[in-house]
Amino acid sequence: MTEEATAFVPGHVTGFFTVHRDDDPTKAGSQGAGVTLSDGVSVTVERSDERYVELDGQPADVAAVETVLDTLQVEATVIGETSLPIGAGFGISGAMALGTALATNCVYERDLSRNELVTIAHGAEVQAGTGLGDVVAQAAGGMPIRLEPGGPHENLIDAIPYRPRVEYVSFGELDTAEVIGGDTALIDQAGRESLSQVVSEPNPEQFVYASRRFARESELLTTRLRDVILDVNEVDGQASMAMLGETVFALGTGLSDAGYEPHVCRVDAAGARLE
Amino acid sequence: MTEEATAFVPGHVTGFFTVHRDDDPTKAGSQGAGVTLSDGVSVTVERSDERYVELDGQPADVAAVETVLDTLQVEATVIGETSLPIGAGFGISGAMALGTALATNCVYERDLSRNELVTIAHGAEVQAGTGLGDVVAQAAGGMPIRLEPGGPHENLIDAIPYRPRVEYVSFGELDTAEVIGGDTALIDQAGRESLSQVVSEPNPEQFVYASRRFARESELLTTRLRDVILDVNEVDGQASMAMLGETVFALGTGLSDAGYEPHVCRVDAAGARLE
Repeated sequence: MTEEATAFVPGHVTGFFTVHRDDDPTKAGSQGAGVTLSDGVSVTVERSDERYVELDGQPADVAAVETVLDTLQVEATVIGETSLPIGAGFGISGAMALGTALATNCVYERDLSRNELVTIAHGAEVQAGTGLGDVVAQAAGGMPIRLEPGGPHENLIDAIPYRPRVEYVSFGELDTAEVIGGDTALIDQAGRESLSQVVSEPNPEQFVYASRRFARESELLTTRLRDVILDVNEVDGQASMAMLGETVFALGTGLSDAGYEPHVCRVDAAGARLE
Repeated sequence: MTEEATAFVPGHVTGFFTVHRDDDPTKAGSQGAGVTLSDGVSVTVERSDERYVELDGQPADVAAVETVLDTLQVEATVIGETSLPIGAGFGISGAMALGTALATNCVYERDLSRNELVTIAHGAEVQAGTGLGDVVAQAAGGMPIRLEPGGPHENLIDAIPYRPRVEYVSFGELDTAEVIGGDTALIDQAGRESLSQVVSEPNPEQFVYASRRFARESELLTTRLRDVILDVNEVDGQASMAMLGETVFALGTGLSDAGYEPHVCRVDAAGARLE
């Protein structure tokens, strides 16, 4: 028996996506592609009789984490720590949910398999309306391509087999629930076209091209981010927008070449894991 | 364009398995479970007009690597380095094949997806008769449970969501092709029972119990290895046999507690990846 366990879950930047609603949250989700990051969230679960959730030293109300704890029928203390900006398109809530599932299973000996834990976290995130594909991508690591939506028992995941350097600059938050809850016809059309582009040439360059095209055609690109992306283009770099946050990411050195002072990390190799 | 690329592929110890033959090597394979190791094989592919394959400083004849290079239609130099013993049940040939696929795709810009590269390496390994499940497990990392056989487009993989310490001691080689090429009725029966045991309680302890039962009931356990496993039992440890090699592995400190001087590593978090 162990009193606590810690899981690391990579951050995830979605480049493009489609929206698939379903009454069953383990079947709902999205297609699309993104990059998981060596910057992520460390989630520690401590055995406890009272429920308490904290993120970066502050009490936090993360609906998906509550659902995971409910599903696993535990109280427990959950402590999240991250160097990533919150609400800016890095999948923090998905990381909190998935890290909670992995670490709780270990501390409370729930004997669930990895796919079952990912399914619980994915369903919790979908129900909370805070994400559609982050959890399954964060479980996989690398540069996942979500060919079919849903949790591990429903979906189909491939990947772009590279691990480039990633740069990012954040300017603030966007409300995911508002965007994915409304009319998504433009998003779905643009998402399908970008997916087809990346499937035919699964490499980092095509991923950024397809992401930029999606940001433009889905009309999700904000004026501020467009200007930053154009600055990166000026120095022959490739950048796009993190879905969904006021964040620009680049593969390689595009943002620093353009004079920004980005955070720098790398594509995560492993996906979510116990420390 | 890059002149060389290096992939790291974890070693893989199979605890138990079943044999599934199929004329299509991407459908053939095995069910079972195992542990991937933080000890593994580093595979560097260098652009070259002449084919040359080396392992630990010696020219090496690895049939699965030849098939991967043929399939990707390149010559190239392939340099493998490993701290693992060769031919002793650690999936070295699978690692060489998978590392060659990942690194060649990068150097020669073949624009194949991760699943396609794993499929090519898996099929090459099956055709060579040197393994049935190592490649897909090594691609996944962690403690993979192979619920259905075959390459990524056919199989179904779950995992035991833990990363314990691993100890191992090797005494020599066993011939994989000889065992999996013959009558496998005993193996298949024991493998199915062990799989069912691990699926119902996917934790490290059950994995070792199920592996030991498989080793005994499949009649693959050698006298020498049985004695070592009994020594580990004497000190309340849990160990089993690596399929297929004269190798004993333990999770935790069983082998060192019993007075052996094992190699020590950990369950790999990431699976095969470019460095």
